[in-house]
Parts: sequence; C-alpha cells; structure tokens
Amino acid sequence: MPKLTRHEVRHPDGRAVHLFGEHSPAPSGYRPPDSPTGSYERRWNPLRAEWVLVAASRQGRTFLPQRSDCPLCPSRVGSSTEIPATGFNLAVFENRFPAMKAGAGEGACEVVVYTDQHEASLNTLSPAQLSDLTDVWTNRYEQLGSRPDVKYVYIFENRGEAVGVTLHHPHGQIYGYPFIPPVAATELRAGRAHSKRKGTCLQCDLVERERKENRRVLFDQSGLVAYVPSFARWPYEVHVVPAKHVGALPELSAVTRKALGIALQRVTRAYDRLFNVPMPYMMVIHQRPTDGQRHPEAHLHVEFYPLLRMAGRLKYLAGGETGAGTFVADGFPEEKAAELRKVIMSE
Amino acid sequence: MPKLTRHEVRHPDGRAVHLFGEHSPAPSGYRPPDSPTGSYERRWNPLRAEWVLVAASRQGRTFLPQRSDCPLCPSRVGSSTEIPATGFNLAVFENRFPAMKAGAGEGACEVVVYTDQHEASLNTLSPAQLSDLTDVWTNRYEQLGSRPDVKYVYIFENRGEAVGVTLHHPHGQIYGYPFIPPVAATELRAGRAHSKRKGTCLQCDLVERERKENRRVLFDQSGLVAYVPSFARWPYEVHVVPAKHVGALPELSAVTRKALGIALQRVTRAYDRLFNVPMPYMMVIHQRPTDGQRHPEAHLHVEFYPLLRMAGRLKYLAGGETGAGTFVADGFPEEKAAELRKVIMSE
Repeated sequence: MPKLTRHEVRHPDGRAVHLFGEHSPAPSGYRPPDSPTGSYERRWNPLRAEWVLVAASRQGRTFLPQRSDCPLCPSRVGSSTEIPATGFNLAVFENRFPAMKAGAGEGACEVVVYTDQHEASLNTLSPAQLSDLTDVWTNRYEQLGSRPDVKYVYIFENRGEAVGVTLHHPHGQIYGYPFIPPVAATELRAGRAHSKRKGTCLQCDLVERERKENRRVLFDQSGLVAYVPSFARWPYEVHVVPAKHVGALPELSAVTRKALGIALQRVTRAYDRLFNVPMPYMMVIHQRPTDGQRHPEAHLHVEFYPLLRMAGRLKYLAGGETGAGTFVADGFPEEKAAELRKVIMSE
Repeated sequence: MPKLTRHEVRHPDGRAVHLFGEHSPAPSGYRPPDSPTGSYERRWNPLRAEWVLVAASRQGRTFLPQRSDCPLCPSRVGSSTEIPATGFNLAVFENRFPAMKAGAGEGACEVVVYTDQHEASLNTLSPAQLSDLTDVWTNRYEQLGSRPDVKYVYIFENRGEAVGVTLHHPHGQIYGYPFIPPVAATELRAGRAHSKRKGTCLQCDLVERERKENRRVLFDQSGLVAYVPSFARWPYEVHVVPAKHVGALPELSAVTRKALGIALQRVTRAYDRLFNVPMPYMMVIHQRPTDGQRHPEAHLHVEFYPLLRMAGRLKYLAGGETGAGTFVADGFPEEKAAELRKVIMSE
C-alpha cells in the first residue's frame, strides 16, 4: 500500500481537497472558489445502449485562463486557487464543474494536479514524483472504488488544446462512474468471451503474442510491455500492460507501480520527440470495475491515443469513426512502432 | 425508383465516375489524376471487438488545396480534376485515397459531389438539387448494396475543418463496408432486443414518444420528424426519421424522398443561423444492411452531430468519450431543441 501522507481539506461547499506528501499551508485570507449550482441527470440512449451524462453547469467552466489566473497553481496572499496551499507536492480535488454530481450517490469527478509547477508536464516529473503519482492513483482507486455508488474508477489525462484541454497546468482526471462505461464493458465482455474459449486472459495473450512477434514492442522492462497494437485505431496508439495478470493498481507490487510511472513517461517523451512538438494525447487507464463483482477477466492496462498522424496533421474522428464506429489508420502499426522505437532508442 | 439519368465514365486506373443529370463533356486533353498505389488491410481489434481499416496511401491525400486547384470542381482546358466534365449537376466518383480498396472484394469508398458550384453547400441547394441528391443516394445504396462484398452502405457528410474536412467543395461520402460497422450493429441489436420485448420497432416508438411529449421536436412534416433526442450525445444533435417504418432509402415514396432533402436542409440551415457561423457537423445515414438478411428491425434515419456547443466553443471527444465511451452533455436537450426551434421558426 502507498505510504504517501494525505491531508484532507473540506471546502465550505463540501468539496474535498487531498494534499499528498508535503505542502505549505494556505495563505491567510484563503477563500475557496464558489461552486456553481448545476443540474445533473443521467439519460439512457436506447439506440447505442449507453448512458449519456447531462451536466448543465459546465458551460461556465474556466477556459484557458491567463497564466497568472491558473486555478491549479498554489494559492498566494490575495489570490485563492483550487488548492488551499502555498506550495504542494500532489493535489487531488473534486471538480467544481463535474460531469456527475459528486457526493450525492451519482459518481465522482476529481482533478489530479501532478505538481505545483505550472510549466511542468508528465514528461518533466522526477522518478519520485512519478512514483507518488501512481501511488495517488492507487489511493483514489481504492477510496472512490469503495463508495457504493462508484462502479468504475476511470483515471485519465487529456493533454493539449487539440484534445479540448482548458487548463495547461499539468493534471489528469478521475471519473467515478455509477456504471461500467461502454468501452470498459466491451473490453471486459471480450475478455470473458476469450477466457471461456481459451481458458486464458485476453490481455495476457496479447502481451505474449507481442513479445513473441516482437515487431510492435517499444520496450519491455520491469514487467511492463509497451507496444503499438496490431489493431491500433490511432496511428501512434500505445498500450502499456503488466505482463503478469493484474486486475487493478492496488495489486501491482510497489516496484512495478514505480516502474509504471517511468514507463508512461517514456511513452510521452517519445511522443514529444517524434515531431518535436508537444503531442496532444489522451492517456486512459482501464482496470477492474469496483462493482463488487470479481472480474477475473480484468487486466490493468494503460492506453494512449495520440492525435497527430504526422507533423502538423491531426487525426480527426469524423463520420466514419463517429457515426459508423470504424477507424481508418493511415499507416501500418509496425511502421509506427519502428518510428517510436527509434525515438526512444535515441534518448 | 429515381429517374435521374446516369452517365458512367471509367478512368484508366479502373475507377468509375458517375455523372447524374445533365453535364457538359470533358475538355480536350482531359487526363484523370493518377491513383497512388496503396496497401490495404483489415485488422481485428479483439479488445473492442471491431475492425480497423489500414489504408497506407492516404497520408498523401489532397489537403485544403487552393481554390483554383479544387479537385471537385469541373475540369477546364489545361486543368483536369476528378470530374471529366466542364459542367455537371451531381457527380459520384471512387475515392483515389480510399479507406478500403475498391473493386477488389473489400468494400467501396465513393465521393458524392453535390454540385459543380464550389461555393455552394447543402444549405444553398435548390429543392430540385436536393431531390436529385436523395435520388443519387438511393441509386448508390442500391448499386453498392447489390455487390456481394458490400454488407453496409454508409452515406455521410463531414463538414468543416473542425471535423477534419480537407476539401471545401460541397460533397459527401459513401462507404460500402464489407461488414456491418459497430455503431450500426449496436443500433440494430438494440432494435432487435426492443422488438423482442415489445413487439414494436424502436425507432417507431421513439418517434411516437417525441410526437407525444412534443418538447424536443423541431418540425414534423411530410411524414418526417426532426428532433433532438432526449439522450443526445452532442448538444445540438438532431435525428431526422420517417414516421412510417421504412428500412432504407429505396422504400421511401418519391414524395417522402423529396421531402427528406428539404428536411435535412432545414436542419443545416438552422445550424448555420444558430451562432451565425457555418456549423461544423457530421451527417450520417443509418439504414438496412445489405448483407442479404431481412433486418426488419432496421429503420432509416439521419443523425446530425454538430460540433459547436456554444458560439466559438467546440465539443471535444476527449478521454471520457473516447476511452470510456460516455458522453457528457453541457445542457439539457429540451433547451437545445428550443434554441433550434426558435431559429427555424424565424426563417
């Protein structure tokens, strides 16, 4: 279990802020930002057989503020941010503009601030900071997952304005869904079908195949395999998967959890060096649902969806992807893996 | 059946061009553009249980050319475009940069050029042109659908650079998939489950409910109902659905087919007037698969996914949508429908 200290602050509107590791106290006169009142509803889409979340307070959310108005920076005297501290290591707080209403039996939305350094990124974190980050994810998975209303803890990062990011301060997010979301459900269903047919785990078999074929593997170290799937939807899609069958973050050994942070950073550093621009990407973690079922088919893995298909050209999700659900890749995953491997090797 | 005349030209590389209605012959010295050699492959994604199409010739495709180099404009002496005509009504040609290899048993990719007028759009087409367009869609559905390799004819339009459009000349596309793509498959599965449970058609029941509740209907005329679904994934998502149970375009009466073009234009005109900017959108048509099965559950409908969530702000498909599959709507569909209705009424 992670040993990182956690200090919890409760804002007057009920929202929690967790300060992990060391921090300096809030400045005198600190006033947390007001939460807008919002309306929240879950609607069932009977055509796509999925939930849609209505969150009618989000339009007013902070949109690309000035550097000096960053709500994820430490607070200063006369300038209160989301974080009630003048300095901090890692902070997690409940989103003021959530997609789901936190604390009312309908899921959770948290923001994970990686560091108090505004200009940092996942790429620049030290090994110790990366280790803290994976520990924090583990803590949040456990704490949110233990809530009866949270059936799936979804940890992710959006990076870059092309992905729709509205704050540049390095951060990720955690959604505690009150249901298993469709992509996770599809993967778990595929995993169960595979197990039934072959008696083995789908992710375990995929990793095994990648190791054997060794054409799309980027690196394989400390029990973690990073590869471009043969079925990549995004040209430079990368999956990072523990070779051992592990359902969720808390079951990773401390050593492998530390290694995971390093591995993820190797991928994001390669992305930025590929075209010498910060790669816009989504990083998403799929793991065992927290719905009280055993889910032996779940196998923790991290998926990266980078948006550039070549220098200066974005891959768009247009009619084919969005209305039919079929992705078109502009190149072969084996070639994309070779490009990424070259960048990684040269570091 | 549509009575529009069709003139077929075959390029030396085997690609067909269909000129519908009147046209003026190609200029002397016309030379069709060369097709790049490409590699095509279908890969199975076992995690998401879907096909991914690899098309390794598309990186070189024409990208936002100068107005004078538009490949969808009529040809002139000394300037050969995709269309072997100096003037035309409506043209369909096989894509030079297809997502699937046309003509080799693995699907089809066609481009539908709505008019030879570069500055036009779906919004500016005359009723006669709209009628021709729906007739052409019907023709392509029938002709492509009769190919043994085409299991699903998918007609769609991407509009605007924010959707990834690389050519501004008004056009749509048709994919003839060698499989039923995931979104269509999901809808059909939901339709079958609904029929089994209730003995009725899901789309018929949804239209019935919208008519009864009458809170999200934009207009209801000539047997076509346009509404913002209560479960909209995009803030201003609109579905246009024949009230009568009709599986595919060829079964629409000539009158309703004509009305369909008008109805779609009413929607796109409302989109452009909503924020007084051309709305980037995807328009997709879901209808009966052409896989040789009966599919009584299929009910023709058109779905619009507009990208703006407010003036100047795009809805992004970020981590939540892409990695979990759950959409977050920033407002209530009932309010969005009211906004659109107001714009439509004021025209």
